[in-house]
Amino acid sequence: MADIIDGKIFAESLRAGIAAEVATLAFTPGLAVVLVGDDPASKVYVANKARQTVEVGMRSFEHRLPAETTQADLLALVQALNADAAVHGILVQLPLPKHLNTEAIIAAISPAKDVDGLTVTNAGLLANGLPGLVPCTPLGCILLLQDRLGDMTGLNAVVVGRSNLVGKPIAQLLLQQNCTVTIAHSKTRNLDQICKTADILIAAVGRSELIKGNWIKPGATVIDVGINRVPAAEPGKTKLVGDVAFSEAVQVAGIITPVPGGVGPMTIACLLRNALTAAKRIETTLEKELS
Amino acid sequence: MADIIDGKIFAESLRAGIAAEVATLAFTPGLAVVLVGDDPASKVYVANKARQTVEVGMRSFEHRLPAETTQADLLALVQALNADAAVHGILVQLPLPKHLNTEAIIAAISPAKDVDGLTVTNAGLLANGLPGLVPCTPLGCILLLQDRLGDMTGLNAVVVGRSNLVGKPIAQLLLQQNCTVTIAHSKTRNLDQICKTADILIAAVGRSELIKGNWIKPGATVIDVGINRVPAAEPGKTKLVGDVAFSEAVQVAGIITPVPGGVGPMTIACLLRNALTAAKRIETTLEKELS
Ligand SMILES: NC(=O)c1ccc[n+]([C@@H]2O[C@H](COP(=O)([O-])OP(=O)(O)OC[C@H]3O[C@@H](n4cnc5c(N)ncnc54)[C@H](OP(=O)(O)O)[C@@H]3O)[C@@H](O)[C@H]2O)c1
Ligand SMILES: NC(=O)c1ccc[n+]([C@@H]2O[C@H](COP(=O)([O-])OP(=O)(O)OC[C@H]3O[C@@H](n4cnc5c(N)ncnc54)[C@H](OP(=O)(O)O)[C@@H]3O)[C@@H](O)[C@H]2O)c1
Repeated sequence: MADIIDGKIFAESLRAGIAAEVATLAFTPGLAVVLVGDDPASKVYVANKARQTVEVGMRSFEHRLPAETTQADLLALVQALNADAAVHGILVQLPLPKHLNTEAIIAAISPAKDVDGLTVTNAGLLANGLPGLVPCTPLGCILLLQDRLGDMTGLNAVVVGRSNLVGKPIAQLLLQQNCTVTIAHSKTRNLDQICKTADILIAAVGRSELIKGNWIKPGATVIDVGINRVPAAEPGKTKLVGDVAFSEAVQVAGIITPVPGGVGPMTIACLLRNALTAAKRIETTLEKELS
Repeated sequence: MADIIDGKIFAESLRAGIAAEVATLAFTPGLAVVLVGDDPASKVYVANKARQTVEVGMRSFEHRLPAETTQADLLALVQALNADAAVHGILVQLPLPKHLNTEAIIAAISPAKDVDGLTVTNAGLLANGLPGLVPCTPLGCILLLQDRLGDMTGLNAVVVGRSNLVGKPIAQLLLQQNCTVTIAHSKTRNLDQICKTADILIAAVGRSELIKGNWIKPGATVIDVGINRVPAAEPGKTKLVGDVAFSEAVQVAGIITPVPGGVGPMTIACLLRNALTAAKRIETTLEKELS
């Protein structure tokens, strides 16, 4: 039986560490969250983010805009937040209403405050191995792996999924950890055999229980990023499952994350970590400029 | 015996295509090359680039600065070239003299004119699959592969080497071609076995004849980016060899590039192609802004 990672406990200890560091700072990091419209799921996320931001001792700035907000008004808000010295991190909750141009909004966020790591600049910094801000879920995966495995040099990592938000940044981070990295996707042939070569297997696909127990190398570390809602046994009810067939995989893997309760809880904790990183960099740069 | 790719002929036909397209344009693309100091090899490259630029019908602007040029003066030149409407591409010949900060100089180049694809912005555009300017040697490798293989969907590609300039951008481009991509490097274990899984094997290592014939899957396509100078049979003489043991590999591979005469000649041709791409984008944007 694999060792099951408790992402909730890990995220709690990460937040405790962030809170301890925030308490030592001469300034208060500030995180602004922008929500356009009233998608119920987004509202819940934003409320959670705001609550946890305050809990670690940061300032939370919430901006709730009506669904019919124009591109120009949203751009103006982002620019105001870029210029606001109390704001060190800016998060625009996605998805945006369809009439807005998401790419242009993201591009307007100052890369130094881009705590979701979504700008082209941060993607380029990550690709070139330079210090930037890394998307939260990939960062969460790497922190879990570092905690469990320590040095990953020379391990074979297979990432299934190549989205800009999840798969590709995870692959970059694993390469930085000196893994040999394979990136697989919907066009990959013999996916089962490729997964079987992995010492570290990352599933970021969005297909419920695609990855079977016999695709996993015995003793491998399996990180399941997938969140899929499927019908539950009880009629009319649903439940969340990952991209890995957990009940099979847990028999084969050495270490595994469950869904829910694995990678999921890490995402907000990593957002707060990015806000802290951004705040420290911005304030250090300011100090240098003033001295 | 493998089919041996003649990179010189392919580069010639690429340049002929560029010349034909340049002839149809309502404007003349301009490429500026900046050389600081008098490194003999760099001088030869710059002269070749300038000659080929003119041959395809573009304007070449050569800027030769003394080795003792200051950072401020070089930055000022780059900024002047950014602002110069006749210049669509800017290439700063590397390596720069040691007293100069290469990273800061590269960062000063307008991403729209960065024909070497070296800026963080262009790395980010490539990582996110958006249109930008791709480093020349990786672009050359992909053009050779597209010419020989056509659709690469589902093929296993192994890239040995993970530099920002060569290995990583090639991996991104192969992923865009829907290959399953593995990135290997100096910390990779069992490199021979990993190479043997490759339908497409890219060697970008800088170790003479590291990759042996029996590391290659029969029929695979092998692209050798390496350029290594080694002692020749004749005493006191040297010769160029690749990262692949060619005489062995040619017996096993389906298609292979030689060194010299494979990837090498593609680099300047791809620089010209990038200059053309940059010029067309810049002029189209200008037209839109004016209309
Ligand atoms: N906080 C969190 O834990 C968190 C955060 C973000 C996302 N997620 C979850 O992670 C999963 C992936 O998210 P995403 O944003 O990366 O999704 P996405 O943008 O839809 O990307 C999915 C990737 O999986 C690949 N894929 C699809 N079907 C496949 C198959 N049958 N075999 C192999 N690969 C296949 C796709 O390949 P192609 O590129 O070839 O189409 C694509 O690269 C989702 O379940 C999402 O809900 C969780
Ligand atoms: N026009 C052209 O044809 C052209 C253009 C550019 C470069 N090149 C040539 O291409 C080669 C690579 O250039 P580069 O700029 O990418 O070089 P580089 O920056 O030195 O990178 C070399 C890469 O190879 C890896 N490596 C080194 N020894 C290895 C080993 N024994 N096994 C596996 N991997 C190993 C390194 O791994 P680590 O990251 O772990 O150190 C590194 O990622 C050179 O020969 C260069 O001259 C040719």
